[in-house]
Amino acid sequence: MAERLPDYRDVEAACGRLKGHAVVTPLLSSPKVDAMLGGEVLIKAEPLQRTGSFKFRGACNAVAMLEDGTRCVVAWSSGNHAQAVAAAATARGIRAIIVMPEDAPAMKIANTRALGGEVVLYDRYNQSREDIGAALAAENNAAIIPPYDFLPVIAGQGTIGVEIAEACQARGLIPDQLLCCTGGGGLLSGLSLGLHQHLPDVTIIAAEPEGFDDFSRSIAAGERLSNAPGARTICDAIVTPTPGAITFAVNRDHVSHGVAVSDEEVLAAMAFAWAEYKIVVEPGGAVALAAGLTGKIPLNGKRSVIVASGGNVDQAIFERALAQL
Amino acid sequence: MAERLPDYRDVEAACGRLKGHAVVTPLLSSPKVDAMLGGEVLIKAEPLQRTGSFKFRGACNAVAMLEDGTRCVVAWSSGNHAQAVAAAATARGIRAIIVMPEDAPAMKIANTRALGGEVVLYDRYNQSREDIGAALAAENNAAIIPPYDFLPVIAGQGTIGVEIAEACQARGLIPDQLLCCTGGGGLLSGLSLGLHQHLPDVTIIAAEPEGFDDFSRSIAAGERLSNAPGARTICDAIVTPTPGAITFAVNRDHVSHGVAVSDEEVLAAMAFAWAEYKIVVEPGGAVALAAGLTGKIPLNGKRSVIVASGGNVDQAIFERALAQL
Repeated sequence: MAERLPDYRDVEAACGRLKGHAVVTPLLSSPKVDAMLGGEVLIKAEPLQRTGSFKFRGACNAVAMLEDGTRCVVAWSSGNHAQAVAAAATARGIRAIIVMPEDAPAMKIANTRALGGEVVLYDRYNQSREDIGAALAAENNAAIIPPYDFLPVIAGQGTIGVEIAEACQARGLIPDQLLCCTGGGGLLSGLSLGLHQHLPDVTIIAAEPEGFDDFSRSIAAGERLSNAPGARTICDAIVTPTPGAITFAVNRDHVSHGVAVSDEEVLAAMAFAWAEYKIVVEPGGAVALAAGLTGKIPLNGKRSVIVASGGNVDQAIFERALAQL
Repeated sequence: MAERLPDYRDVEAACGRLKGHAVVTPLLSSPKVDAMLGGEVLIKAEPLQRTGSFKFRGACNAVAMLEDGTRCVVAWSSGNHAQAVAAAATARGIRAIIVMPEDAPAMKIANTRALGGEVVLYDRYNQSREDIGAALAAENNAAIIPPYDFLPVIAGQGTIGVEIAEACQARGLIPDQLLCCTGGGGLLSGLSLGLHQHLPDVTIIAAEPEGFDDFSRSIAAGERLSNAPGARTICDAIVTPTPGAITFAVNRDHVSHGVAVSDEEVLAAMAFAWAEYKIVVEPGGAVALAAGLTGKIPLNGKRSVIVASGGNVDQAIFERALAQL
């Protein structure tokens, strides 16, 4: 495949491939919350997506686009892309080898195995998952499905943007802004292509964990910057060193700016989603909601779509969130 | 209003009244869970309904059917009907006085107030909520909206049966059975009317908490029997002494039988819903899932719809559920 940038036609094609396989997740609202915040909030509930996060969209599209005769795929992931690729590949009778950090949430490792993935663990701080993945792919004559900087994956994630636009249009609503977490930028770039095609005037704002605000600084600087090493966060799903090359090239045309939130703010947002929307959101998936609830991205007087991107969280972390109430 | 039994025309009319007010909740599925159970499970996710439970359906329909000029309503409820009536009445500028037990979950009392309800607390074990409600209605020239044994409420709850049938038909699926919790029987009777109109061959099975299996014993005996006094359960939402007269008259034509589950089985089902479906389910709302997961209603080899009826649960009880994992 040529190294061109993804565009809306790729997203549209992905919508067709995902039909009947991925869930059209609901856009949740709460008049009580809206009254409290003085603004209208619509939560795109991706924890209800197959395998518990948006990642199934990209994985499903990438697997559907594999060359005929591919018998094995290799992916690396802290857990959500892992589960998604395992489920999407296994459903088509394709073997899935998944490289995961040994400190990934236990639930994510267990689920990846339960979904048919062959898990290879590595040390996140001292080994390169790309090197391990490349070696496994060569050994097994496998296709690699990278987690974000890859056209088929970006296009698959873009289906969420089309769904948001369609759900808003069906209700006669035009959002002012959309808040979305970002790690490598696959979700954000796909979503931007899908959403802006139908609703070009929505302001798209990114949210990241403190210490991992590479995208926010990059979009401000106009070039890809990296995080300083050594930071820690509970937001395992969106820990990446640098924005992807392809995703950043797309995102800089669509995304306004980014903000960063603390782990405590994320835990409070998880508890809020539990209490008010009755959904389970994992730390990385609650970053955009946290950015809104803290006022770092003001919600009052606006109609905001907030993406809750996943719900795969271990019990101990979830109990820490509930303790915030 | 004449004391006739509700029928499908009432449910159909309710569908029209609820359009744009109530949420069409999703029917969730998990191929991973299905593989584990050896059967296909579809979860009707009413925690995602407005005010966090199916009760908004009946309350919304009942408020829409009030006589012109009604300025105040009175309702009694352990909390879900309370929140639902408060929200439905307030949305139409009608005053809502809600009689609630003083030991109702704190979240339910707080939410009822936040939704605009005027809460009057009573002692569940020594006072009659019906007497208190009747006196308040007389004082305030208010219409009473009873929690279940009332045609407009039953018809409103019936909209869930129509939604389930439509969602199944849209996917080309015909369920073998439907599992639903029951307290007074309002949800079960409305659902039965709505579902059997479209899918007459689905076996409908009720689930109740141990010690509160009045419906199961009544359906077996063919007459309304009461619970022995003194039992306790965490399933506050579905604690009623006897099946309703109207609801039982409908249910005995539609419901196959009932089973009872323990509080521990309910807590395990809440944890299961958290882990596998990423939704927050309260104890009373998890009774039907518990009946399936324990095998009291076998799921293997079948396609089952399971109603998760609500998600309004206090943090302490939810933490007890997570501790089951």
